[in-house]
Amino acid sequence: MSENVSPEQTQSQGPIQDLDHQILTTPLLSTRNRSANSTSQVAIVGVNLCPIESLDYEIAENDFFKQDWRTRGRIQIFQYIFMKWLLCFLIGSLVSLVGFCNNLAVENIAGVKFVITSNMMLSGRYETAFLVFFLSNLGLTLFAAIITAFIAPAAAGSGIPEVKAYLNGVDAPGIISLRTCIVKIMGSISAVSSSLLVGKAGPMVHTGSCIASLLGQGGSRRYGLTWKWLRFFKNDRDRRDLVTCGSAAGIAAAFRAPVGGVLFALEEMASWWTSGLLWRAFFTTAVVAIILRALIDVCLSGKCGLFGKGGLIMFDVYSANISYHIVDVPPVLLVGIVGGILGSLYNFLLDKVLRVYAIINVKSITYRIFIACAISIFTSCLLFGLPWLASCQPCPLDTAEACPTIGRSGNYKKFQCPPGHYNDLASLIFNTNDDAIRNLFSRNTDSEFQHSTMLIFFVTCFFLSIVSSGVVAPAGFFVPVIVTGASYGRFVGMLLGSHTNLNHGFYAVLGAASFLGGSMRMTVSLCVIILELTNNLLLLPMIMMVLLVSKTVADTFNGNIYDLIMKAKGFPYLEAHAEPYMRQLTVADVVSGPLQLCHGIEKVGNIVHILKTTSHHGFPVIDEPPHSESPVLYGLILRAHLITLLKKRDFLHTPVRIGAEAFKHFLADEFAKKGLGNVDRIEDINLTDEEMEMFLDLHPFTNASPYTVVETMSLAKASTLFREMGLRHLLIVPNTSNRTPVVGILTRHDFMAEHVLGLHPLLVNSKWKRVRFHFPHFLKIF
Amino acid sequence: MSENVSPEQTQSQGPIQDLDHQILTTPLLSTRNRSANSTSQVAIVGVNLCPIESLDYEIAENDFFKQDWRTRGRIQIFQYIFMKWLLCFLIGSLVSLVGFCNNLAVENIAGVKFVITSNMMLSGRYETAFLVFFLSNLGLTLFAAIITAFIAPAAAGSGIPEVKAYLNGVDAPGIISLRTCIVKIMGSISAVSSSLLVGKAGPMVHTGSCIASLLGQGGSRRYGLTWKWLRFFKNDRDRRDLVTCGSAAGIAAAFRAPVGGVLFALEEMASWWTSGLLWRAFFTTAVVAIILRALIDVCLSGKCGLFGKGGLIMFDVYSANISYHIVDVPPVLLVGIVGGILGSLYNFLLDKVLRVYAIINVKSITYRIFIACAISIFTSCLLFGLPWLASCQPCPLDTAEACPTIGRSGNYKKFQCPPGHYNDLASLIFNTNDDAIRNLFSRNTDSEFQHSTMLIFFVTCFFLSIVSSGVVAPAGFFVPVIVTGASYGRFVGMLLGSHTNLNHGFYAVLGAASFLGGSMRMTVSLCVIILELTNNLLLLPMIMMVLLVSKTVADTFNGNIYDLIMKAKGFPYLEAHAEPYMRQLTVADVVSGPLQLCHGIEKVGNIVHILKTTSHHGFPVIDEPPHSESPVLYGLILRAHLITLLKKRDFLHTPVRIGAEAFKHFLADEFAKKGLGNVDRIEDINLTDEEMEMFLDLHPFTNASPYTVVETMSLAKASTLFREMGLRHLLIVPNTSNRTPVVGILTRHDFMAEHVLGLHPLLVNSKWKRVRFHFPHFLKIF
Repeated sequence: MSENVSPEQTQSQGPIQDLDHQILTTPLLSTRNRSANSTSQVAIVGVNLCPIESLDYEIAENDFFKQDWRTRGRIQIFQYIFMKWLLCFLIGSLVSLVGFCNNLAVENIAGVKFVITSNMMLSGRYETAFLVFFLSNLGLTLFAAIITAFIAPAAAGSGIPEVKAYLNGVDAPGIISLRTCIVKIMGSISAVSSSLLVGKAGPMVHTGSCIASLLGQGGSRRYGLTWKWLRFFKNDRDRRDLVTCGSAAGIAAAFRAPVGGVLFALEEMASWWTSGLLWRAFFTTAVVAIILRALIDVCLSGKCGLFGKGGLIMFDVYSANISYHIVDVPPVLLVGIVGGILGSLYNFLLDKVLRVYAIINVKSITYRIFIACAISIFTSCLLFGLPWLASCQPCPLDTAEACPTIGRSGNYKKFQCPPGHYNDLASLIFNTNDDAIRNLFSRNTDSEFQHSTMLIFFVTCFFLSIVSSGVVAPAGFFVPVIVTGASYGRFVGMLLGSHTNLNHGFYAVLGAASFLGGSMRMTVSLCVIILELTNNLLLLPMIMMVLLVSKTVADTFNGNIYDLIMKAKGFPYLEAHAEPYMRQLTVADVVSGPLQLCHGIEKVGNIVHILKTTSHHGFPVIDEPPHSESPVLYGLILRAHLITLLKKRDFLHTPVRIGAEAFKHFLADEFAKKGLGNVDRIEDINLTDEEMEMFLDLHPFTNASPYTVVETMSLAKASTLFREMGLRHLLIVPNTSNRTPVVGILTRHDFMAEHVLGLHPLLVNSKWKRVRFHFPHFLKIF
Repeated sequence: MSENVSPEQTQSQGPIQDLDHQILTTPLLSTRNRSANSTSQVAIVGVNLCPIESLDYEIAENDFFKQDWRTRGRIQIFQYIFMKWLLCFLIGSLVSLVGFCNNLAVENIAGVKFVITSNMMLSGRYETAFLVFFLSNLGLTLFAAIITAFIAPAAAGSGIPEVKAYLNGVDAPGIISLRTCIVKIMGSISAVSSSLLVGKAGPMVHTGSCIASLLGQGGSRRYGLTWKWLRFFKNDRDRRDLVTCGSAAGIAAAFRAPVGGVLFALEEMASWWTSGLLWRAFFTTAVVAIILRALIDVCLSGKCGLFGKGGLIMFDVYSANISYHIVDVPPVLLVGIVGGILGSLYNFLLDKVLRVYAIINVKSITYRIFIACAISIFTSCLLFGLPWLASCQPCPLDTAEACPTIGRSGNYKKFQCPPGHYNDLASLIFNTNDDAIRNLFSRNTDSEFQHSTMLIFFVTCFFLSIVSSGVVAPAGFFVPVIVTGASYGRFVGMLLGSHTNLNHGFYAVLGAASFLGGSMRMTVSLCVIILELTNNLLLLPMIMMVLLVSKTVADTFNGNIYDLIMKAKGFPYLEAHAEPYMRQLTVADVVSGPLQLCHGIEKVGNIVHILKTTSHHGFPVIDEPPHSESPVLYGLILRAHLITLLKKRDFLHTPVRIGAEAFKHFLADEFAKKGLGNVDRIEDINLTDEEMEMFLDLHPFTNASPYTVVETMSLAKASTLFREMGLRHLLIVPNTSNRTPVVGILTRHDFMAEHVLGLHPLLVNSKWKRVRFHFPHFLKIF
């Protein structure tokens, strides 16, 4: 029973600790029923100002649930299945619409901005152009920062770590709400339009997850019909499945990569997965793909302003005659190795920078907005200032595109150059990120860029994206990583020059792959996403090789970017694999604190006392003589259900079992998972002294099939069980016959490294830890 | 304790039952220790002549294992990790080589055959041509049938169902052995070359799995070094992971679809999956892709005979200007719906035909070979005879290819036609399957085929592939399904004529997708495989739609093709989801028979008695007074470990605990999973009367962390636990305090529908069953 860690124990752990420190504390779990004195601990990256809840992915098989399930006729089962698919269809439709509008808005806002400033520069009004550029960027950033900071702080950042934690069973507050959703959409559009080096894929994933969860909650209690059909979705399990589909739809909409979206959700996001869910996620992204395809069809006729030139494939680099041979393998391997090192360095720096921002962010909202403005100003100056360093290039004669491009975005930016010349750095940096990637990926442009340009662009992107990630606005990592990686890859291609057969555009693709592999550490999903982004199937063996090499290299240094952020935010994430030291312990070794039990027929006063004095979310129920011959473990009852029973005040005067009769007084909905902010608290229930002396028959409401382990079970195996089954509570039963039928209870917290190693400090040695190289000490100054 | 079902109980169940019968019996599980009287029951599709074993994917955490693990230094851990990756690399290399040789051999053997017969026909010698065609086909089929029937009967058929069952924990005998592997490779080459309508993808998956497992077993005990480094792989878990990688490599090599291979293994084959395994499977298929790419590079220079014209993409239909609009959606939906119906009909007929063949096959080997020859003769006659029905077409004037193609395989076969004309049916039917698919998929050939030709070809393929599937030779389903689906799709495209914008080649791709979806029922993996086969990324939304529609339609009728075959073969496959009726039962309801226990310190005679009188593979170990204060559940010991202990004859004279000292006498290898045919039997151990009175301390060899459930746990949840954790035994503990600490044991068999519904026949009603439409009764004549 370790949910109630004493305040002293928690206070002794500092809020933010160095990554190289042996164990990072997660003070969040133990702050459930204390808030005033621990908010500063919680808000590590400025988001989690409320306590974190665990989610319950186990099916609670109490008699009431079974009764409800038995009364489901064919109609209800049909309703459930129909709603499942309808919800997926709605998620797909809404997410694709949001993704499309997002693209449309960004391309038009940023496009108009660049067209206006370019036109001003064309007529020599450089100061006005800078002012317009500077002010529009600042305004857009300010808008994004203000709505994020004041309306929905949870919408800041990528959102992928939060959704990943949610799918693991960690419910960070405010992550999935209508408010967050709207702010995320608006904030993402304005942040990306304001030329900050931030991505839109992460925010799209978060938006997709929010939309999915909100659709599952439906019209709340206001509309009778909606509520009735949605009642089967009022539990953590079905909602989790919807959120998984939503996150797949997010990537599908952001990159127009439907299969990549499914695989991303499968490989990176989801902790639990079934074949049925795979099918529904596939359906959802198919809907996204079909609707996006139809909308693009509409836009091709030119009705969407500056948007609409691209087809379904965002960065098409198809080439019918790609030829590469064995001699091309060594340079490609080099790209992978260096990309892996750079990717892990990127993760390392990003983690440090986010922690520094977090310290500043907790001070006040003003600070956060101030930082956002500072980053915007810095970015504007860089984007406008750096191209002056590049020398003007004469336009190539045989290009298909107009050079210099005037009045629209394109490959050859004129910037300050004389007619017939273009500024190659401006083509990359004074442009939207999507256009920059397109320029970098484009074939037959090997002579377009200078070495110095590419180096400046790479360094700028690398550091600017790290600095921008901490801005208090929706900010993804995918696009910054792709643009940084592409510039790095193209630079390598340029350095190799004539020593390689592949053109520089393909090196840019490989560079992007290596950088993605080095920082995101996915394999299949990244491979498919890159394939769907670039349409270069013939290059697939090369891309697979690069991804493998960069992931392998980067994994020797640190973890993937989302895991690092989750750790920094203190989410109690359950890893799929037990740590090696857990094999040295039994479950009995980590149980602490006294065990709180309920009896099958319990006095109301006792229940109130237990609920008021502890913060546990589940209690074992045992039957003792005279109600049974000997003590019997009956099951597990949830705190929420006890509170529902107390609220109903349907108490018994004598301690007798009432059985199935109890169901008549309740609707299934009363035991359903409550929506956000609707959770009842024991403090709100006032009972008379007379009521306190009455009884409740808990049997019908007790989950009679709780998962149990024998006390001698190794912690590693119990951990696997807990994680694989998606449990919230795991009961420990004795291995001998003459003791109480339950001797302890395990929760998520009991499997966390800091708890286990706190109880058994001797295990803190490197032998049982994952072997990793560490960056040299001088990097610790961050 | 239901492993030892009485012979009477089993005998009462017939060997083969109709699919529409409520429950299909799987008599295999209960035939472990009886062989003579039940072989005829087992050999449903003529393969399983030995009893089926369960595999153990749980980590047995006994003291010995822990001791072994503790003594592993950094070197051993490095060895283990290095070997893991090295094995994946070797699997990838070998499978790609085998796949390449397979392609090379088939293209050359079949190609030469067609070139010779075509040349003979060119000079008017039609009878000789037929004779050569007929005899070469018969010879090749005979060779394949003879080596399969006499050397390795387990190599017959696709192999995918067997590997899928293996990955679920069912070890069908002979499935994974060197002999099967070699016969599968040779047989597949000659069967495919002999113009039988059978595929090579299924056999490649089986071959890949065999190679993986054999590599994991390594050089057996002969080479000291190999053995030492491989000792960590001598368990079911690591071998399962290798086999998964092998099956991924199989698809990757067969279709040159590396990502599709990983996803196929993930979606269809594997029952358990971790992120680490995903990564290794990806690595394996990347190796396959890179090596295949290099080999194709070598062949492009013309050194590989008739092979080598194709690039990395087998059926490239890339088109830069695919345009489709909303109006194209209804016909594509139609393709999906009809494809789904046809696919489920295909599965239905295939299942019936395989059952009919099985009845014939069990009679004798001569029958089997006779059937194979009959099918070959029938096929030869059809392939040579049908083109005479088609009228000759004048050659198009604007074709890039030579027309008619003479002296090589190509789009326009001359067959019996006069000069300047071609026979369109011969172009499809008198050709290798790969070339037929290429012709069907090809763009800008809308006027090449006549309606009647396409209809004849579709009907021929549909029925011929069903008939051919039962041949006693390696025979996959992928290619027949693709060719049938492509002809069906192209026929729909031709019927639509000018009502659609898409060209017929794309309809063929969509038809293939719909037929694959309708019979294989995969989503993501088929989508990626089709993408990698055809390189038409722009068509992706259409393909996703078709796959979803056809799978949905087909699922209302029956299960996927591999599940049907697994059912027919009687594999006790554990589904990922518990059946609804299981929620109505507790684990105590399905336990039958007396429980066999061991004591922590047990008399040798008792152990021998238990082993001889039962066929269980695991026994609970309890400590009783005087060795403990009260009866204590200590753990679970495996039959194999008991036999190892008995063989060692290191017995104690007095009943005392010896603890860690016991390990000195054993090497870890002695407790490792034995290779094929090396399993020790209790009958082979002869002990003296004196030894029988001595004792053994079982504690160090007992798995002290067995998974347990309380007896009131619902069967559904126990089933989920059993499946998710990959267990072989699950102990049942009491919920009260005054009974023995273990009251039962569950094995795979206890979760099978026929066992559960046999004990509780009242549950056999449709409410708890999956709702499915059934084919009309007149189809039951099959």
